[in-house]
Amino acid sequence: MADQTANRLNGLRLAILAPISWPSPPPGYGPWEQVAADIAAGMAARGAEVTLFATGNSRVAGSVEAVVPVGVNEDAGLNGDVYGALHTANLFRQAGRFDLIHNNFDWKPLTYAMGSAAPPLLTTIHGFSSPPILAAYYACAGRSFYCSISDADRDPGLDYLATTYNGIDPHAFTFVEKPGDYLVFLGRFHPEKGTHLAIEIAKKAGVRLKIAAIPQDREYFATQIEPHIDGDRVQFLGEVRREARNELLGNALGLVHMTTRPERFGLTLIEAMACGTPILGARMGSLPEIVVEGVTGFLCDTVEAAVAAVPALATLDRHACRARVETTFSLERMIDRYAAAYAEALERGLPAAPSAERLAWRDRDYWERPMAFTESPPKPARAVATPRWP
Amino acid sequence: MADQTANRLNGLRLAILAPISWPSPPPGYGPWEQVAADIAAGMAARGAEVTLFATGNSRVAGSVEAVVPVGVNEDAGLNGDVYGALHTANLFRQAGRFDLIHNNFDWKPLTYAMGSAAPPLLTTIHGFSSPPILAAYYACAGRSFYCSISDADRDPGLDYLATTYNGIDPHAFTFVEKPGDYLVFLGRFHPEKGTHLAIEIAKKAGVRLKIAAIPQDREYFATQIEPHIDGDRVQFLGEVRREARNELLGNALGLVHMTTRPERFGLTLIEAMACGTPILGARMGSLPEIVVEGVTGFLCDTVEAAVAAVPALATLDRHACRARVETTFSLERMIDRYAAAYAEALERGLPAAPSAERLAWRDRDYWERPMAFTESPPKPARAVATPRWP
Repeated sequence: MADQTANRLNGLRLAILAPISWPSPPPGYGPWEQVAADIAAGMAARGAEVTLFATGNSRVAGSVEAVVPVGVNEDAGLNGDVYGALHTANLFRQAGRFDLIHNNFDWKPLTYAMGSAAPPLLTTIHGFSSPPILAAYYACAGRSFYCSISDADRDPGLDYLATTYNGIDPHAFTFVEKPGDYLVFLGRFHPEKGTHLAIEIAKKAGVRLKIAAIPQDREYFATQIEPHIDGDRVQFLGEVRREARNELLGNALGLVHMTTRPERFGLTLIEAMACGTPILGARMGSLPEIVVEGVTGFLCDTVEAAVAAVPALATLDRHACRARVETTFSLERMIDRYAAAYAEALERGLPAAPSAERLAWRDRDYWERPMAFTESPPKPARAVATPRWP
Repeated sequence: MADQTANRLNGLRLAILAPISWPSPPPGYGPWEQVAADIAAGMAARGAEVTLFATGNSRVAGSVEAVVPVGVNEDAGLNGDVYGALHTANLFRQAGRFDLIHNNFDWKPLTYAMGSAAPPLLTTIHGFSSPPILAAYYACAGRSFYCSISDADRDPGLDYLATTYNGIDPHAFTFVEKPGDYLVFLGRFHPEKGTHLAIEIAKKAGVRLKIAAIPQDREYFATQIEPHIDGDRVQFLGEVRREARNELLGNALGLVHMTTRPERFGLTLIEAMACGTPILGARMGSLPEIVVEGVTGFLCDTVEAAVAAVPALATLDRHACRARVETTFSLERMIDRYAAAYAEALERGLPAAPSAERLAWRDRDYWERPMAFTESPPKPARAVATPRWP
């Protein structure tokens, strides 16, 4: 079976569609681009003939196909809508060159695949940004296999081929044996990421907090974060890139990840653990799958529980954190998972018809579903039937 | 030749892709939907087997294919991005059923066509909303024939199959022989539409102005329009629908259309003329093609010239306005033009390769091109090459 999977990769003409917000890999923030670049490199290392559809300033093993010179988030004059569409079209117009397409660019490419004689298609659902896009995933479910990035981040209306956890190269992170004396928050400023809770926890526990994040919700930052920044108890470091991140994570007592909505996966969690740093996180979403409770961190239901757990972070074996990444969340393990998913997609060609139970979920009101939606748009005034396409 | 064109239509399996902001035809505003519905009806009347891809509440001869029950502008909960993509996918996934596709849904469907074995494709460019979408029209120029809606609204980087002026049914508008005593402005509130100039002209000329428009730029309305509304000299009627529009236009002295950017076509111009009402308009864009200077209206370069022309509006023969529509801008003439364009698209299959001159225009900076752009986004910091796809 493992051999068969390996054989499948050898010479496989694989197209990987990356997002174009940032280059692949990204110099700073850009988790989807990072994963796309890592998959491209990993599959090329295992013998696949990889073409990565990404920005022109992307650098990976294999060849890059680009319609846009840099990430659309790197130049305010680049229209993401236009270049996203041209980027997707550039893949589908030459789909016949490939044996398999791996889509990491959200839901819209699925709608292109509906009218294309493209080869088997695998889509990693890196996250449902808002309820209405479920309609697109439902409508195109007959055309693409889906992978989730945690068991928790699955919609009951969809069939999934596999959970393909993200992975990192543990060697890119320096293991630090001794626990540090500060908590760290890493990510982007958005209420759902719980930076305000990290501040509250650090203050109540009497430990310093270092925040490294990119702005997203600026009002949230101005009203709930900025007033607490004092350069000492609460430090704001801006966006930290690769090297600085390694140091910042490794020397911490723990990574605080008290999200207020279910985390889909959480790359920073495994980056911290690779450095030996345990997690102090919310008991929701992917965290119970990533963190071994009491071994690689603590999961809490309340701020109070998190405050109480802070001292215990120093008692955890930091080797266990590192080992957790090496055995389960390494790049190699991620590539293993995708290799198996590719083999199955190639074997089956198209997804099987959905069960009556799945279809019923698609017809139910999915607006209030407890998914990790990042946006809360208004709900349609009327029921809208999901297209049932073969 | 005319016979050949007629034969081409008989039994032609024609897919028309309409926008989904509003139903086709729209109850009020919605010029692109109106044209799409009119083409569908006109082609069905001439023997084509028409499938209109539109909203579920669209009503036309032939069959309607819909993924969304009402216009996305009619229900704030309907995500235009998701339903626009599904709407387009719904056409391309069954493209093999058709002999010809007529796209009235802007540039994005072109990017779907790049990866599809769809039949010949004709796209009416109803307007370039902003410079970056030129990149999409350039990139996909090998896949779709283009029609412009006036000779003025052509980009020098594109080849056009034809200018297909919009048309209306003159019988839907009541001819009024006697000039009225007020000016009328009809459209949407946006600085480029020149509602503020219409107010200035009416005040200086000492005639009443009736404004019927839908809100678009709310700040513009609040600061430059609203303060002038007094219910007498300057009246605001809100959005007027079919019947009221007919009456409002017919009883006017003239339609003021002092746009500040080139008009692409201007449906309201021919609606007014169908009622016998002449045009007082800006000498730019499509207006010199639509208005016969001194016969069906006056074209002006300045507000002062327009003020001076107001009294002369009453001296024009209103029959000439009506006749202009009947001979040149009727639905029947529009259908004639599209029938000829369809015949040529079917004959040629795909557009010819562009000339070196066209290609050179595509490589030139098109950001500052004097097109009828409705948006002025920032320009990319670097030069971005347009994809050269076959």
